Amino acid sequence: MKVRQAIRVADSQPSRRDTRLDKYVEQYAARASGFQVSAVRALFAVANRPEVVSLAGGMPNIADLPQFEIGATISKLIAERGAQAMQYGSGQGEIFIREKIVEVMAAEAICANADDVVITCGSQQGLDLVSRIFCDPGDVVLAEAPSYVGALSIFGANQCEVVHVETDELGIVPDAVRQAVTTLRAAGRKVKFCYTIPTFQNPTGSCQSVQRRQELIAVAQEVDLLVLEDNPYGLLGFDREPLVALRAMDSERVIYLGSFSKTFAPGFRVGWVCAPHAVREKLVLLQEAATLCPPVFSQFAIAEYLENFDWRAQIRAFADMYRERRDAMLQALVEHMPPGTTWTHPSGGFYVWLTLPDGLDSQAMLPRAVSARVAYTPGTAFYADERGCENIRLSFCYPTPARIIEGVKRLGEAIRSEQETHAIFRTERTARPGRHGAVINPAPDIN
Amino acid sequence: MKVRQAIRVADSQPSRRDTRLDKYVEQYAARASGFQVSAVRALFAVANRPEVVSLAGGMPNIADLPQFEIGATISKLIAERGAQAMQYGSGQGEIFIREKIVEVMAAEAICANADDVVITCGSQQGLDLVSRIFCDPGDVVLAEAPSYVGALSIFGANQCEVVHVETDELGIVPDAVRQAVTTLRAAGRKVKFCYTIPTFQNPTGSCQSVQRRQELIAVAQEVDLLVLEDNPYGLLGFDREPLVALRAMDSERVIYLGSFSKTFAPGFRVGWVCAPHAVREKLVLLQEAATLCPPVFSQFAIAEYLENFDWRAQIRAFADMYRERRDAMLQALVEHMPPGTTWTHPSGGFYVWLTLPDGLDSQAMLPRAVSARVAYTPGTAFYADERGCENIRLSFCYPTPARIIEGVKRLGEAIRSEQETHAIFRTERTARPGRHGAVINPAPDIN
Repeated sequence: MKVRQAIRVADSQPSRRDTRLDKYVEQYAARASGFQVSAVRALFAVANRPEVVSLAGGMPNIADLPQFEIGATISKLIAERGAQAMQYGSGQGEIFIREKIVEVMAAEAICANADDVVITCGSQQGLDLVSRIFCDPGDVVLAEAPSYVGALSIFGANQCEVVHVETDELGIVPDAVRQAVTTLRAAGRKVKFCYTIPTFQNPTGSCQSVQRRQELIAVAQEVDLLVLEDNPYGLLGFDREPLVALRAMDSERVIYLGSFSKTFAPGFRVGWVCAPHAVREKLVLLQEAATLCPPVFSQFAIAEYLENFDWRAQIRAFADMYRERRDAMLQALVEHMPPGTTWTHPSGGFYVWLTLPDGLDSQAMLPRAVSARVAYTPGTAFYADERGCENIRLSFCYPTPARIIEGVKRLGEAIRSEQETHAIFRTERTARPGRHGAVINPAPDIN
Repeated sequence: MKVRQAIRVADSQPSRRDTRLDKYVEQYAARASGFQVSAVRALFAVANRPEVVSLAGGMPNIADLPQFEIGATISKLIAERGAQAMQYGSGQGEIFIREKIVEVMAAEAICANADDVVITCGSQQGLDLVSRIFCDPGDVVLAEAPSYVGALSIFGANQCEVVHVETDELGIVPDAVRQAVTTLRAAGRKVKFCYTIPTFQNPTGSCQSVQRRQELIAVAQEVDLLVLEDNPYGLLGFDREPLVALRAMDSERVIYLGSFSKTFAPGFRVGWVCAPHAVREKLVLLQEAATLCPPVFSQFAIAEYLENFDWRAQIRAFADMYRERRDAMLQALVEHMPPGTTWTHPSGGFYVWLTLPDGLDSQAMLPRAVSARVAYTPGTAFYADERGCENIRLSFCYPTPARIIEGVKRLGEAIRSEQETHAIFRTERTARPGRHGAVINPAPDIN
């Protein structure tokens, strides 16, 4: 048989005995050496065990979507338009879903044209494409302190240097943006954009007021800085109508990333970039090179959903459900956290940002927490420098209220336990070894 | 209203009057300047008009898929498992579809484990991820002369230099690979891999014999070169069983790209990379950073299709249909091409590679052809250097046999017309201006 002969020939070549674990190690690109496995990877595998309450992840709760009806709608789509829905499509994304997205963005005062919109494989891919278009190795991007780990991952993979900018309870501090840009440029560095999640930020939950947004835009104009606005949670506020997007305040300076992942469902991988014309042209060229086109079937499916279902009512239902979970978490935190623990009080989104009592280290404490059958994401994941070890991000999006309460209770016990250990050994928080290169969290965080 | 106030503030800033067409032109990364709009873009918009027979594109004909039954299957999927199918998934792709892919690859003698497989957004994204993992700016990748335009696009976007290697009727010439590697390395260049489409190559239609494959692998081993094997058409042969894949001959040296786009449908954007362990690890890290995970719903949908339908019979039906179209094209070429025209005779896949009579230029002739209501892709699209102007790629995958015959007839008339013009003016083929940078064909070619 020719196949067997073919394989025998390959086997009979005298092979160089290469005993390296990774024989390609000298062939990788420079950027690949920055892909680091996160120290918490091993723990996340454990954290996903059913007996562990995971307050670590960012998966939306989609159990209440009307699955049967959605199935019927998509069945009809395939039967009637399968030849288009299952075919290659436009590199920019299909016109009908871009038109729907213009309607969706109008809720945040964005006036856009379908032509300004580029569909991506989730807004995560939007982060990738935008940073590839703008950033050379060594260029700087500004990000909030702390910021979304998935953004830090891809900026790092694209060899950008992330410089964190001070935040307060209203989010990024505009004066600090000005200061950072001035200092970096004086040192000869190129600052390509400021990455911000203005509304229900991941991980802090903060929401920029209208005035804060105005101030940020004013500074960006003053220092001629692009702003990359990431907005997956904008419509998931618990107490208010959506705030005006940064994009609505300056459409030439703000590149906007949107997503259906939290307002509908993540598994279709449909997000979008709303960008100024010249940037959009480059995005389309790069998307076509990188994927030919974003998932067509997914775009048809989501367009059918938006057309045939009361998607606004579904978002309100999601917000009610997440509000209940936030309330459960905040109540449980009051009840179970030891003195010296503080936390944020988000008015939307998925996350609470907790600060541990003095002297504790969230990364060092994680094994103890998992042994106590609760998991969280240490604050260090959300910094490109070494900060964050006194913080924890707690997600209330996925577990039920009862599980949230139980998880926070277990967390309280773990913290107290850790405090006792510290008291016994009078352990000072030791300097942790520097982390080099980009950290890519392989149990991917969600934004 | 706060929104109106916010927008007024932005408008009232004294704006620098920037009259450049692209105000970001100084901010883009170096790689972005290589994104060129192809000269044929304007013509493709015209080529898609209904009165034009397009022999230019690479869209598979999926009209005969059992749409109603597939719709019913997917409806059941959503109703029963919507909460998983519409949720975030694994960065490596879902285990059940990777297991199916192992079955699919077995037809080409590949013995793999589900763990060796990484799901991508189409095999196009596999090209992107692999080149990002291996290539620094200025690194060389070898490609067939000619090669798939989408690969040239993304290699260029990732700042690789493509060096074409001689081919003959059996595909890439192994001696030429050895020669290229030796010469390039002697000049201090890094050659990261050899990109090849061994089976029913895009654009030539050639198929490497088993012996040729053995010789290529032997050379790759001799010079220690990675091989990137792209195989979207491997199961679409008209006259034979699938040939042994290069991957089956050396699983440590060959990175394999597979796709469901031609054997099922393209719109789901599900492809895969089958790679050695260390490479696979890096692919997963980069995929997680770039997209979090490939389209989950699409993976569930395709797995359901493979589970519930006779997908092998469907592929045989596709092959029969494409064989009929190939036959129509070859017959029509015999009938309508003027003397001096030659062409390949593919035994599978989608394409015929035609060489024009002496002195004609396929790119220069394209407007005339489109006026004559036939479109094709000029051979220049398939070279990163300036070759290919005497060639045309003709696709027989999408139009009906009758339309193919009509299109070839119109092409024959266009060629004769062009010859007459040349005879009248005794026009010598002039040197065409150099093309700089990467060409990204924005009417994306398909592989």
